[in-house]
Amino acid sequence: MGATADSVIDIQAYMKNVGDRAVSARYDIGRADSGTKNGALHAIADQIDAKAEDLKRENSKDLEAGKAGGLDTAMLDRLELTDQRLASMSEGLRQIASLPDPIGEITDLAYRPSGIQVGRMRVPLGVIGIIYESRPNVTADAAGLCLKAGNAAILRGGSEAINSNQAIAECIRFGLAEVGLSEDVVQVVGTTDRAAVGEMLTMKQSIDVIIPRGGKGLIERISRESAVPVIKHLDGICHVYIDDDADFRKAVKVAFNAKTQRYGTCNTMETLLVAEAVAADVLPDLCAHFENEGVELRGCDRTRAVMDEVNAASEADWDTEYLAPILSIRVVDGIDAAIDHINTHGSQHTDAIITENYTKARRFLREVDSSSVMVHASTRFADGFDYGLGAESGLSTDKLHARGPVGLEGLTSQKFIVLGDGDIRE
Amino acid sequence: MGATADSVIDIQAYMKNVGDRAVSARYDIGRADSGTKNGALHAIADQIDAKAEDLKRENSKDLEAGKAGGLDTAMLDRLELTDQRLASMSEGLRQIASLPDPIGEITDLAYRPSGIQVGRMRVPLGVIGIIYESRPNVTADAAGLCLKAGNAAILRGGSEAINSNQAIAECIRFGLAEVGLSEDVVQVVGTTDRAAVGEMLTMKQSIDVIIPRGGKGLIERISRESAVPVIKHLDGICHVYIDDDADFRKAVKVAFNAKTQRYGTCNTMETLLVAEAVAADVLPDLCAHFENEGVELRGCDRTRAVMDEVNAASEADWDTEYLAPILSIRVVDGIDAAIDHINTHGSQHTDAIITENYTKARRFLREVDSSSVMVHASTRFADGFDYGLGAESGLSTDKLHARGPVGLEGLTSQKFIVLGDGDIRE
Repeated sequence: MGATADSVIDIQAYMKNVGDRAVSARYDIGRADSGTKNGALHAIADQIDAKAEDLKRENSKDLEAGKAGGLDTAMLDRLELTDQRLASMSEGLRQIASLPDPIGEITDLAYRPSGIQVGRMRVPLGVIGIIYESRPNVTADAAGLCLKAGNAAILRGGSEAINSNQAIAECIRFGLAEVGLSEDVVQVVGTTDRAAVGEMLTMKQSIDVIIPRGGKGLIERISRESAVPVIKHLDGICHVYIDDDADFRKAVKVAFNAKTQRYGTCNTMETLLVAEAVAADVLPDLCAHFENEGVELRGCDRTRAVMDEVNAASEADWDTEYLAPILSIRVVDGIDAAIDHINTHGSQHTDAIITENYTKARRFLREVDSSSVMVHASTRFADGFDYGLGAESGLSTDKLHARGPVGLEGLTSQKFIVLGDGDIRE
Repeated sequence: MGATADSVIDIQAYMKNVGDRAVSARYDIGRADSGTKNGALHAIADQIDAKAEDLKRENSKDLEAGKAGGLDTAMLDRLELTDQRLASMSEGLRQIASLPDPIGEITDLAYRPSGIQVGRMRVPLGVIGIIYESRPNVTADAAGLCLKAGNAAILRGGSEAINSNQAIAECIRFGLAEVGLSEDVVQVVGTTDRAAVGEMLTMKQSIDVIIPRGGKGLIERISRESAVPVIKHLDGICHVYIDDDADFRKAVKVAFNAKTQRYGTCNTMETLLVAEAVAADVLPDLCAHFENEGVELRGCDRTRAVMDEVNAASEADWDTEYLAPILSIRVVDGIDAAIDHINTHGSQHTDAIITENYTKARRFLREVDSSSVMVHASTRFADGFDYGLGAESGLSTDKLHARGPVGLEGLTSQKFIVLGDGDIRE
């Protein structure tokens, strides 16, 4: 659909139709047994393998349009579907098929004094809307996770990937039809008109939750404007605190890994905190490692008193997610100041302590108010695969519903079930 | 504060201050150990007992103002603090003290292939805002639940109960101070200006979740306008479906109890569904019971073909929460039509099936999309006490975060904890 005079009305009607179809399809997928859902996942994966050449051809249209439209090299790279990426897309779907089905699981079923049995049953959320940018592999990945968790999905990818996404959507529809599921279980929005996103954010009657995946600007805008509940992840300003009771060997190893294993990820350390009592002992060795790796260091005054070649950090540095080879360093009095700094300047994402002291480790775990809190481990571990969730559809820095890496379980809810034998309330 | 020309600015500043104090206090209560929290609950309960006469004196001011202002008898009744209500208020706090402390509980802690241990720790939500009407006992009850779950609370009661609520607030502050907790852990908003509610709904930076308790109008307005996430309960349009494989004795017993045990509660049955094959067998006996009890019956055409004295139901009846001795009755083809009716017209609250058929009971449990789904039990059982949650701070018909009766657990979140020994990601 083009941006004609009446396109807003067209888009409203188009999205209303998408929403209505999703609501119908949610009962179909919500009832589907595990074998049917896994069959669909395998059929989609097989079709992606079989249609690899078609997918690359459609992808090349996006790449050409992207080049002509001036996309930068990094964006073009993310957009490209190589043979390897296609193979890992279908492999990802087969892995989702191999995960246990969360739906229908009954827990805590116990007799109550009144005679009734009360328990909880895990159920789908209903309809999940996913709004994402450039990488077309999200289309297959998000579709697979929503489907396995018994949800209908409305996927809205970036306009730069429209041809790739529609080609993947065709493989998904094929797979759904193969096992007799409604093709509306996964709908990939077919218009590049930005009004479609705005429309999705108003669709409280048909969409149960929206998950935005992409840059901070996109996520902020969506969570500000959405009338539909949003599971979101904003900043990742992660910390490692080296306590005065730290084992320096572990401190250097963990802090170095937390910063340098990858720079652009949300669970990368952005600020290092060091207890004053050990700053002069641990910083020279650690800073040398960072400098060898080409990491720019920005320190507080007490840091620079020990390491005078380090640049001066400003107040703004404590609140900045660099996503780059830059690290801010602050020397603090001890664990109280460290916890206070993290709870004030952090983003409630992932924070770690290095200490051999039992009491301080225990306090840090309880008092740091972040979605992941670690002792003696690199912040880079904070993701669904390393946590054993089997899959990840993003990470939540909210506290309601899902917190931390969101696996299949985060795409579900629980209802109460009651089993009786004619029981009544007196 | 009166409604003077600059009252909006006053209210903004006042509520900003309340929010800032709550944010400071949340760390205090979040860290508090179980003994301290239980000590505070007992101290508050003791103070309510000791100050019973003062509380009744303040309450009588509200009652007089209410009478002068034209409050109806039902509202005046809800507003009154009798000796018995005061005793059950302090008793309720002592019961909350006796519940297990949910905070700090670590579950699912297991080793991962990488060598790290990953688990979940239950943590407070932070700051909870509660907006409620008339009954002053909610002040003590909500304060107790929030406190036990490690949260700071901002309570905003109805203007008609302002003197009673402030007197209870004084007992709460006394109890908090007794055990050395910040008095800002529970703040009861001290202005009757309605702008205070509007202000609370914007306070995303200081309030983590808002729970409205009161009439449907209040809850709808709050959930529509709030920028802060809301845990809410709207309608309770509950169903009992009598299947063609029902044991009639159980059917009559459960359906009668579900409607008549109390009329004004959200878990009361509003629509009875009966399979056509047994309508002529079960309806005469059941309707006689309802008519003896003075329940007005409104039936579909097929119901009236069996019971011609029953009034005609309109389409609107299927979507109405009567909260009164009125019952709509619909004869349906069988379980498919029953599930379809419930998922279309219900409010996702509580629905029950009466059947001796295993396969249909199992299907009903899975396919009815409501917060509580029951077999052979009265819908009236749907509450936190009967479910063994120990306490209830409302019931959620939402799917995200908490669904169904909300106990202490619904006022908490879980974070991931990771224990390592210098582990890094390769």
